[in-house]
Amino acid sequence: MTDYKGSTLELECINTIRAVSADMVQTANSGHPGAPMGCAPIAYLLWNEIMKYSAQSPKWINRDRFVLSNGHACALQYVMLHLTGYADSKISDLKQFRQLGSTTPGHPESFVTAGIEVCTGPLGQGISNAVGIAMGESHLAATYNTPELKVFDNFTYVLCGDGCLQEGISSEASSLAGHLGLGKLIVLYDDNNITIDGDTTLSFTEDVQKRYASYNWHVQAVTDVVTGLDDLRTAIANAQACTDKPSIIAVKTVIGQGSPHKAGTSGVHGAALGEQELLDTKKGYGLPNPELKFQISDAVVKQFNTASKKGEDSLTKWQINTMDKFSASLPEKAQEIQRRFAGELPTNAFDDLPVFTIGETKDLATRKFSEGCINALVPKLPEMIGGSADLTPSNCTFPKGGVDYQKGTPHGKYIRFGVREHAMAAISNGLYAYGGFRPYCATFMTFIGYCMGSVRVSALSRFGILYVFTHDSIGLGEDGPTHQPIEQFEQIRSMPNIHLWRPADSNEMNAAYESAIRNKFTPSVLACSRQTVYGLFGSTKEKAMMGAYTAIECEKPALIIISTGEEVKFCVKAVALLTAAGIATNLVSMPCQDVFLQQSEEYQASVLPGNVPTLSVEASAVAGWHRFSHAQIGMDNRFGASGKGPQLYDHFGFTPDNISNKGKALVEFYKKNGNIPALRNVPIFEQFGKALH
Amino acid sequence: MTDYKGSTLELECINTIRAVSADMVQTANSGHPGAPMGCAPIAYLLWNEIMKYSAQSPKWINRDRFVLSNGHACALQYVMLHLTGYADSKISDLKQFRQLGSTTPGHPESFVTAGIEVCTGPLGQGISNAVGIAMGESHLAATYNTPELKVFDNFTYVLCGDGCLQEGISSEASSLAGHLGLGKLIVLYDDNNITIDGDTTLSFTEDVQKRYASYNWHVQAVTDVVTGLDDLRTAIANAQACTDKPSIIAVKTVIGQGSPHKAGTSGVHGAALGEQELLDTKKGYGLPNPELKFQISDAVVKQFNTASKKGEDSLTKWQINTMDKFSASLPEKAQEIQRRFAGELPTNAFDDLPVFTIGETKDLATRKFSEGCINALVPKLPEMIGGSADLTPSNCTFPKGGVDYQKGTPHGKYIRFGVREHAMAAISNGLYAYGGFRPYCATFMTFIGYCMGSVRVSALSRFGILYVFTHDSIGLGEDGPTHQPIEQFEQIRSMPNIHLWRPADSNEMNAAYESAIRNKFTPSVLACSRQTVYGLFGSTKEKAMMGAYTAIECEKPALIIISTGEEVKFCVKAVALLTAAGIATNLVSMPCQDVFLQQSEEYQASVLPGNVPTLSVEASAVAGWHRFSHAQIGMDNRFGASGKGPQLYDHFGFTPDNISNKGKALVEFYKKNGNIPALRNVPIFEQFGKALH
Ligand SMILES: [Ca+2]
Ligand SMILES: [Ca+2]
Repeated sequence: MTDYKGSTLELECINTIRAVSADMVQTANSGHPGAPMGCAPIAYLLWNEIMKYSAQSPKWINRDRFVLSNGHACALQYVMLHLTGYADSKISDLKQFRQLGSTTPGHPESFVTAGIEVCTGPLGQGISNAVGIAMGESHLAATYNTPELKVFDNFTYVLCGDGCLQEGISSEASSLAGHLGLGKLIVLYDDNNITIDGDTTLSFTEDVQKRYASYNWHVQAVTDVVTGLDDLRTAIANAQACTDKPSIIAVKTVIGQGSPHKAGTSGVHGAALGEQELLDTKKGYGLPNPELKFQISDAVVKQFNTASKKGEDSLTKWQINTMDKFSASLPEKAQEIQRRFAGELPTNAFDDLPVFTIGETKDLATRKFSEGCINALVPKLPEMIGGSADLTPSNCTFPKGGVDYQKGTPHGKYIRFGVREHAMAAISNGLYAYGGFRPYCATFMTFIGYCMGSVRVSALSRFGILYVFTHDSIGLGEDGPTHQPIEQFEQIRSMPNIHLWRPADSNEMNAAYESAIRNKFTPSVLACSRQTVYGLFGSTKEKAMMGAYTAIECEKPALIIISTGEEVKFCVKAVALLTAAGIATNLVSMPCQDVFLQQSEEYQASVLPGNVPTLSVEASAVAGWHRFSHAQIGMDNRFGASGKGPQLYDHFGFTPDNISNKGKALVEFYKKNGNIPALRNVPIFEQFGKALH
Repeated sequence: MTDYKGSTLELECINTIRAVSADMVQTANSGHPGAPMGCAPIAYLLWNEIMKYSAQSPKWINRDRFVLSNGHACALQYVMLHLTGYADSKISDLKQFRQLGSTTPGHPESFVTAGIEVCTGPLGQGISNAVGIAMGESHLAATYNTPELKVFDNFTYVLCGDGCLQEGISSEASSLAGHLGLGKLIVLYDDNNITIDGDTTLSFTEDVQKRYASYNWHVQAVTDVVTGLDDLRTAIANAQACTDKPSIIAVKTVIGQGSPHKAGTSGVHGAALGEQELLDTKKGYGLPNPELKFQISDAVVKQFNTASKKGEDSLTKWQINTMDKFSASLPEKAQEIQRRFAGELPTNAFDDLPVFTIGETKDLATRKFSEGCINALVPKLPEMIGGSADLTPSNCTFPKGGVDYQKGTPHGKYIRFGVREHAMAAISNGLYAYGGFRPYCATFMTFIGYCMGSVRVSALSRFGILYVFTHDSIGLGEDGPTHQPIEQFEQIRSMPNIHLWRPADSNEMNAAYESAIRNKFTPSVLACSRQTVYGLFGSTKEKAMMGAYTAIECEKPALIIISTGEEVKFCVKAVALLTAAGIATNLVSMPCQDVFLQQSEEYQASVLPGNVPTLSVEASAVAGWHRFSHAQIGMDNRFGASGKGPQLYDHFGFTPDNISNKGKALVEFYKKNGNIPALRNVPIFEQFGKALH
């Protein structure tokens, strides 16, 4: 590297980044040194010259965002956060890379480490999040900036690898980003020709640059960052200057750059170099004390102190010249920004939720009640932004008077995601990550299978996204089994930190939306019917917010029926039949298992004592219901079918008659067999292991 | 349409297809008339002139495959199957479109209707299946054809719409198809500028043709099929002639062609035309008796009879000139083909499954035992073809002596899917659909969230795919919570017609593979550990094939512990501690809940009587375990963390000590509180509603 064209200090900085990243992986004896070593020049340039950020105020709302889409390369990011002075990335933290409870976990976690914007690791998520982040910036800029005062004016930078660009989610997001002309999104593609299986010629020989051109991106290539950074500097400047298209820069790098025996091979992707190879590598870098780890020279420290200081200065300048003036001239707008980024709600947020009066208000499908809630909340909550994956008329998600968010109308808040479910969810995560948003997005319930990867990231990241998933049962009818959810409810219920709401009527839908909005760190799925339901006499929003409640109550129940959503309407009739037959029956409506399980033991026992014969009725997999009921009417290990919705309900046994007959049979069974399993007579063990973060 | 350039009969045929499709939707008052009306010319050409098929032998192995990727347009396909004489698509069937139990369901179902290759409807699946189908053809051709005898020599045609091309899954599959140079795959893109939300300018403005060129496809455009078919004829001929690249033809169509008020609008996408509009449309077509439905003139009938006859002739010719000669000259190969397409197994299929002798055989991670099974089965089962989504070294799926399936080596059986999980699963479905294959494919367990949509289609379609999902718990360690499955087991267990196997040792892994291979109509997920496990003294393949069995048995157990996979090793030690403490404890290993639940009541009760205090131990969501156990040690509503695998197991309570302590506490609890809930003392209701197909 004697022919390095930049300064000696620049090269030393870059090699130090490489070396410390490799040291981290070697010390952990786990991790991915190859990408950090290859991408160190890119990171150096971004943090040293390009990006504006504040290590002291990592949440500065106008910071440039950086997303490490190839999350396995996170040693690189932690090193950069260390060099620029972030509190969670001290040298002692770098030494704890990938260790239990550290602030330097094996993939970036936004709730663990200051300076990390999103959780990445599952490939393709980061670049798709970044599309959402860039949309967030453009929307807030269009909403709040004045010609003089640019409160929101940041770039979003992404580093991604081949894996991210092979994933379909990034294709979806990138196509939409091109459509939307996101001029301040700049993707740096680590074009190193290597994936885990080996050379990209094994499976990835498409022309990536041409593909991004087809998406209407601004495309550049930089063939060398090993001998100097001027080409990359120019390319980034060009990307910044191109304001009407997102930019991608394909940067040729060498994975594991500098490793004498492993550079350019998949062997350096996901394993430590080994002590000897590491030593030889550092010797090759010409760094002092190569036998020691975590060595950063004073010159390098100083260089990054300067960069960090420049970042703080840019914050100060923005505060004085922009934000303070904005607050002075537009105090209400400033307060609104402050409120949105603090995740606080206006006091009147829920005042306009629809009132349903049985016998007066029109009976509708719960998707229409959902629409009513959206119409009630969106005017109160400017932070609500959302849309549908090309099912707007079916999902009923377009708010009254809504304006599309488009290239020419970035102030609009309705997003036309296209038929791109996976990117839709990841973009929603990106909007949330930008700050100041409570995104909602929509498709048919069954298509959660197209976006489960991103829904999981919402839950893991503690991002309170609202997922409006309509057509939530066989009741949707003729579209048939490909479109009819069966296992999806249990799939969501079994996922940590996410609430599945399946309201039975308008009051319960109000509860679902209020709960979803209030739970800002927990995503919520709002399951909605295509078919009409009827107001439940015993329902109120307040009761429903307990997750489950007794909707029809009798003195001494001989039987309890639990149900959810649309099927509650059959149970109401079944209860009438049972009561007429002399079997005193309670009906429990359970719009949200997750929230019910958070209630006190006393409350739970008051609704579901567990020693009264209990029958659950839900047109879904019975898995998961055994903790609440002795017998289940469900879709046990079978898919739906194509036919009229009501006929399907009949065919599969969701009829008042069948429910009532099974209720009777259950009561008879225990008259004969006694010994009702007391479902609540189980010990409650305290959870082992405290939360780490 | 007076200026139609083809014959009057040709136009009458096309208009009849349009009219009958619209009649079907009108009669059902449900469905999608727009795409059939727009695409009728394409369908006419394919079935009348282009494709070779046999209505009498719909499973003819060398038929051209047709995949309707825009499955909502299936009225079109049913009409074509009717006109060409398929048994399941009589006029009476067309009149039952979308009705319960009919052979003309709302989206195509391969197990319902002869002539349907795959279940489509979820967008993007069909085109991705077709990539697998075309791979299947090229592999079998390379494997069996001789220079003179082309047993396998068919094209795969796809009709798809904008929605399919917006989905990431199709991007993944198309990129791979270009890489593989699948010259006999021909995609007809219904380029109608309309999606459900409205004009494609709302969200889909990329240059599709340029994108497909970037994938290395052969790309053509046809701007008109309304006034004649010559341009399309030429384009298809060109596509057939291009043998080293897949072809896409962007065909400009008008959605709802001919509808006076709705053509070209999203209003005609997903709803019946209405009686008056239908009448006016048919009048516009110039068809006789427009006021009547399902009218097909004798001339049209005759035209398609001729086409159908031509198809039967091509089968006869192939049988005599190719297959019979092949059978005569290569009888063993012919028998193998016959066996593979019949889905039969060679008698010695499982003879080489690895033998594990405790104390002699090396203890390994179950992913290595999985590798052993692959190595034992692949040489016996040429129908096993598979690969990994760029995690080959981690998934351990490359068979000894394997050869990559690549453009230059189509006889190879190891598929480099790239980082494309969703397409991987859909391609596996396509290979299965082609016939003669038992595909396996692999990624990390947590990334099932990236391919759930396709996994569901496997289960629904009754395609016995093997999903090898490794790194199946927090035990994977440092990669952290994005990579650690929690809810995934329950997500699979709650899905109909799929088996989740989580073997604890080598014997159980053998059982898992044997079960997976024997269940040809049920996909199986093989969950594998990254960490070492130890041979279980009580295990045998035969016991494990029951789904659950008592691995450590005592005379009169005071406690039963159930566990799965890697955590069984902690439970073995816990049982020793408990026994030492005077608590007689059974250990039940439960590698497959799904298979266990298929056993007799007697067997199930013998393993899990339900009235003995029972503790389940699995490092996953506890949802779903309550039917088997009174208390659970699991990952209840929490994600994992980054750290060393063993430390994570310690942190979250998967230790012999904690298991033993909780076991004691459970026994104590019932000593004090009595009334052990008898988990099996529940009625078993017969399933309501017979299977329809
Ligand atoms: Ca790479
Ligand atoms: Ca279209």
